[in-house]
Amino acid sequence: MLKTSLPSLHCHMRHSLIRLSYRPLMTIIEKDKKSNGNFQLKTPKGTRDYNEKEMTIRQGLFDTITKVFQRHGGVTIDTPVFELRDILSEKYGEESKLIYDLADQGGENCSLRYDLTVPFARYLAMQGKKPEGLQMKRYQIAKVYRRDQPIMTKGRLREFYQCDFDIAGQFDPMIPDAEVLKVMCEALDAVKVPFNIKINHRQILDGMFEVCGVPKEQIRSISAAIDKLDKLPWENVKREMIEEKKLDEAVADRIGSYVQHLNTTHSIDAFNLIHLLEQDTHLMAHEGASRGLNEIKLLLEYLDVFKIRDRVRLDLSLARGLDYYTGIIYEAVTDKSEGLGSIAAGGRYDHLVGLFSGTNKTGKPKTIPCVGVSIGIERLFSILLARQKMDTIKANPTEVYIISMGDGLLKERMDIAQELWDAGINASYMFKNKPKLEKQWAICDKDQIPFAIIVGKEELEKGQVRIKDMRSKDDNQRGGIILNRENMISELKNRLKVL
Amino acid sequence: MLKTSLPSLHCHMRHSLIRLSYRPLMTIIEKDKKSNGNFQLKTPKGTRDYNEKEMTIRQGLFDTITKVFQRHGGVTIDTPVFELRDILSEKYGEESKLIYDLADQGGENCSLRYDLTVPFARYLAMQGKKPEGLQMKRYQIAKVYRRDQPIMTKGRLREFYQCDFDIAGQFDPMIPDAEVLKVMCEALDAVKVPFNIKINHRQILDGMFEVCGVPKEQIRSISAAIDKLDKLPWENVKREMIEEKKLDEAVADRIGSYVQHLNTTHSIDAFNLIHLLEQDTHLMAHEGASRGLNEIKLLLEYLDVFKIRDRVRLDLSLARGLDYYTGIIYEAVTDKSEGLGSIAAGGRYDHLVGLFSGTNKTGKPKTIPCVGVSIGIERLFSILLARQKMDTIKANPTEVYIISMGDGLLKERMDIAQELWDAGINASYMFKNKPKLEKQWAICDKDQIPFAIIVGKEELEKGQVRIKDMRSKDDNQRGGIILNRENMISELKNRLKVL
Repeated sequence: MLKTSLPSLHCHMRHSLIRLSYRPLMTIIEKDKKSNGNFQLKTPKGTRDYNEKEMTIRQGLFDTITKVFQRHGGVTIDTPVFELRDILSEKYGEESKLIYDLADQGGENCSLRYDLTVPFARYLAMQGKKPEGLQMKRYQIAKVYRRDQPIMTKGRLREFYQCDFDIAGQFDPMIPDAEVLKVMCEALDAVKVPFNIKINHRQILDGMFEVCGVPKEQIRSISAAIDKLDKLPWENVKREMIEEKKLDEAVADRIGSYVQHLNTTHSIDAFNLIHLLEQDTHLMAHEGASRGLNEIKLLLEYLDVFKIRDRVRLDLSLARGLDYYTGIIYEAVTDKSEGLGSIAAGGRYDHLVGLFSGTNKTGKPKTIPCVGVSIGIERLFSILLARQKMDTIKANPTEVYIISMGDGLLKERMDIAQELWDAGINASYMFKNKPKLEKQWAICDKDQIPFAIIVGKEELEKGQVRIKDMRSKDDNQRGGIILNRENMISELKNRLKVL
Repeated sequence: MLKTSLPSLHCHMRHSLIRLSYRPLMTIIEKDKKSNGNFQLKTPKGTRDYNEKEMTIRQGLFDTITKVFQRHGGVTIDTPVFELRDILSEKYGEESKLIYDLADQGGENCSLRYDLTVPFARYLAMQGKKPEGLQMKRYQIAKVYRRDQPIMTKGRLREFYQCDFDIAGQFDPMIPDAEVLKVMCEALDAVKVPFNIKINHRQILDGMFEVCGVPKEQIRSISAAIDKLDKLPWENVKREMIEEKKLDEAVADRIGSYVQHLNTTHSIDAFNLIHLLEQDTHLMAHEGASRGLNEIKLLLEYLDVFKIRDRVRLDLSLARGLDYYTGIIYEAVTDKSEGLGSIAAGGRYDHLVGLFSGTNKTGKPKTIPCVGVSIGIERLFSILLARQKMDTIKANPTEVYIISMGDGLLKERMDIAQELWDAGINASYMFKNKPKLEKQWAICDKDQIPFAIIVGKEELEKGQVRIKDMRSKDDNQRGGIILNRENMISELKNRLKVL
C-alpha cells in the first residue's frame, strides 16, 4: 500500500542531508527500504521514531523551555490530539488543506489538531466564566499534525512538537505582548541558538494594503503572497499577485515601493524605520496603521526595560499565513550560521476565542484577547542534535551495575539489586544465570554506568562486596575496593552525590 | 507491552467508580451540551481537556512512575501517534474494530495506535541488529486511542495514557519477567494504591483447554470467554461457550471443574495451588502446561528474593484478551477499598517482533522475546484526584508577585521582574498600568504565591523595596519588610530555599 509516498520522501532526504550529516537519519532511509512480505516496515510518511539518545536531547530541550515558561508563571493544560472538524475549519486559510482528517467510522467528524492555538481558544471558550474575568498564562508542549511535504533532515515533519506560551485576558496594551517576546528570547537563549526577531503589526500591514489600493476582500490573500518575500524575489511575488490573484499592476507596484524600500532598510534600528513611517502622511491617515504604529512604539519601550529591544527589527514584509492574528506579529529567525530560518513565531489574536464563545446579550462577541508564541522544537532539536556526538550521550539512567565474578550468584545479585532499588538507587544486573565477566564490563562501558558492585562467593560469606568506580583508570582498584555489605548503600549514595 | 488487557480493564472501571464523585468531570458533561450556532462547543466524544490542577496531579503521577522505570535502568523512546494500517492489523483479535483510522486523503493508509506494544515491536524489528544481540529495557508514557463506548465520569476514555515498561532480549528464563513484576509493584506502591496480583501462564491455560478437549482452533476464543469469569458467573460463561461458541457441553463441564475448583482455592498461597496442579497427572502430561508450571515455580523463587511473592495469586481464569501473549500473564487489581478493578497488566510476548522482522536464511523467525507491563494511568489518576481537594493544589509556579502600592510604577515592576527572571526566580506582576492593591493581593491568594515584592515610589528612590511573606499571618509585616534593592535577590533565594 505505501509505495506511493516513498519516492518523494527519499528524494527530499537525499538532497538535504549534505549539510547536517546526521547518521541516525541515514539509517532510517535504509530501514525504509526494508520490506517483509506484503507490507513495508516503516513509520508513516513524514513521521519518525526517536531512539533513547534522541529522546535524551529532546527531553532536555523540553525541560529547559518548560523552566522558562514556569519562570513567567505559566501553567499547563492538555487537550485531545483530535478536535471536532468544525472547530478547526475556517481558521487556517489556505493551509486548511493540510489538515489530517479521521475516517468516518460512524459518529462525529474529527481532525487531528493543526496547532495548539485553536484548541486553546476552544478550551478558553468552554471555561464558562465571564470572558472579562478570565486570565491565564498557559504553556503546552504537544504534537501537532500537518500533511505537508516533509523534509526530514530540516526537521520539517508531518507529526511534530510545538511549544506554546500564551497569555489570555483583558489587560493594558502591549504589557502581555512584551512578556511573550521576553519569554521567546529567554527560551531561545537557554537553548543557546543565536537569533533575531522580525516584528510587524497586522493593522499596519492592512493599512499599507488599503493605502496601496488592495480591495478589502483580497487583503489576506495578498498578505499571504507578501509573506513569501523571505524566500522568493520581489518579481515572483509580484507576478503571483498580478497573474494568480488578479491584482492591478499599479497596486502591486505601490506595495513594491513599500516592501522594497523596507528591504533596503531592514538592518537599521526599528526606531528609525518607525520614524520614516510616521512621516508617511498617507499611511498615517489610516486609523489602523496609525494605531498599529503607536502600539509598536509602546511595545519597544517595554522591550527596552526587558533589555531585548536591540534584537527586534520592524519588517513590513512579515505577514504570517494564519488568518487569526489581529495585532503584533513576530518571528524569531536564526542567523546564517545555523541556517534554519524561522524557529519561533506568534502574535496577537484577539477575536479567535470569540468565534467559539458566541455573543453576549447585547450582541457583542464574548471574546478573550490573547497573545502567544510557538517555539519550533523540531528545528531546535535538529540544531542541538548536530552539535552533539551521539556516543557521548548517556541515555541509560543506571547508576550501579551488579557484577558477579565466577559463580553466577544470580539470586545474590537480585538480592543486592532489590536493596539498591529500595534505597532509590538506579541499579541493573545481567539477566543470566552465569554471565561472563567481560560481557558485564562491556555493558558498564556501553551504558556509561559509573559504579559496579562486584559480588564473589568468598566476600559474600564474609558479609562483603566490592565497589568499583568504572570511570577511574586507576589499575589499583581493578577488582574494586572491599566494603562491608551494611555500608554499601551509604558509600554508594555518597559517591553518587558528587557525581 | 501488554496493554492487551485493557478492554477488560475498561469493564472493570465501568463497575467500580460509583463511589468516586468527581465534580470536574461532571461539569465537563454539562459543558458538552453547550452549542454555539451551527457547531457544538465540546471535545470529541470520549476525549476531554485537563486543566492546570488536573495536570499537576497527572504530571506528579508520571514523574513518580518514570522514577521507578529509571531506577530499573529503563530508557525511553517515542513513536508516531499513527502507524501504517498494515502494522496494526491482525494484532488485536476481536478488538480490532475499535481502531481509529485516518481518512484516505491520498497516500498511505494509517490508523491511530491502539496500544504502545505493537509500535514497540515494530520499532524493535526496524533496529536492524541481529535480534539475538538486541537488548532493551524501554519505558514509554503516551496516548493511545480506542473507539470504545466511553464513560467519562468513570475514567473510561477514547484517548488515554498508557505507561509501559518492557524488557526485550534473549535472557535466561523468568529473570526479566520477575523484574517487570517488581517494577509494577514499585510503581503502584509509589502511588500508594493497595493491590494484589493475579498471574497465569498461557501455556498452562492452553494445556488445560487441550486436556479438557477444546479443539485447537477454538482455544483463543474459549480463552476470551473464560477471561470474563471475574465479571460473570460460571453459568453465563458456560452458556456463551456452548451456545455462541458451539463447545461440547461435556468439554465445558470439564473446564468448569478446573475453574470452579480454582475459584474455591484462589485465596490460598500460590504454592499450594501449584502443588495441587502438580498432582493432576492428566494436565502434567501436557508438555506446555508442565513447562508453564515450572516457569511459574521459578518465577516465584525470584519474586521471593524481591519480597513480592506474597502479593501474587495463581488464577487459572485469568486469560487476557489479546492474541500475542505466549507465557506468563498478570494483572494487578486494586482491593475493594479503591474499588477500581484492574490497574496494571501485562505478560510475555515472544513472537510479536518476529511478525515484523521476518525470517532468517534458515527460515526461522528473527524474533526478539519480550515481556512487559502497562500501567493504567487514567484509573490511578481518578484515584489520586478523588483523594485531593482541588483548591489545595498549587498549579501556578509563581514564587514572587511584584506589587505596586499607589502609583502603578509599571516599568519599575517590569524592571524588577526582569531582574528576578534573570536570577532564575519565577515572578509575575499585574498587567495593568495602575493596578488596584486588593486585586494584587487577591492574585497572591488565588495562585498561592509565597512571596510579594512591594514597590513604592519613596522606597524606590532610596534604592529599597519591601518583601512580604504571603503565608505569614503576622500583622507586623503587613506592609512587608524593607530591603535594600541589591539584597533583594539573595534574600528571596534564601527564603525560597527553605520553602
